[in-house]
Amino acid sequence: MSFDPATLKFNDAGLIPVIAQEAGSGEVLMLAWMNAEAVARTLESRRVTYWSRSRAAFWVKGETSGHGQELVEMRLDCDRDCLLVQVRQTGPACHTNRRSCFYTAVRDGAEVELMQAEEF
Amino acid sequence: MSFDPATLKFNDAGLIPVIAQEAGSGEVLMLAWMNAEAVARTLESRRVTYWSRSRAAFWVKGETSGHGQELVEMRLDCDRDCLLVQVRQTGPACHTNRRSCFYTAVRDGAEVELMQAEEF
Repeated sequence: MSFDPATLKFNDAGLIPVIAQEAGSGEVLMLAWMNAEAVARTLESRRVTYWSRSRAAFWVKGETSGHGQELVEMRLDCDRDCLLVQVRQTGPACHTNRRSCFYTAVRDGAEVELMQAEEF
Repeated sequence: MSFDPATLKFNDAGLIPVIAQEAGSGEVLMLAWMNAEAVARTLESRRVTYWSRSRAAFWVKGETSGHGQELVEMRLDCDRDCLLVQVRQTGPACHTNRRSCFYTAVRDGAEVELMQAEEF
């Protein structure tokens, strides 16, 4: 069956949540959002392209930071309302210069920081 | 720093997206939603508890299907607007009886099914 981004289920803002996962290690890096055009651009260019809700603009991950994501595979879920992109991440995924945005754990009722910012 | 679910950033519906990942393999299983009370119940009971948007009710994963998720660790992201739960999943996570909800890949412009439903 051929894939058409318009067949995905977008929220009222026309967006779908996208989980980015490092293809090699399986580490979950971040969650961001795409509209249908960002999905199409990502598949076409193989450079993961989100929709920035704060800037209301396309966001080619790494275009300014150099910390881009090369698409290895895109998957969709059973409800067609969430995407998983398996990527090769260059540098840290997080704007805090940590490898993953999920660097804080909740342990015994307290927040514990798991990762240090990388140096550049 | 002690953790208070009320300090997370919820959307206009009072919900936060939650990525569930198998703790051992790193496989991403599903994305669902929690409100602040579901976050608290999950941490307290160690049984992952979502908010079902379709039923508008708490959803203790596996309570009816038996396919529950035991919480290994909860993490939050840099913006405090997404959670990652690393879990031990009993049986398939997906309501289609597949291990993960992300069983469809987009390859060369076509949808490709990667997993079979498990038999019970």
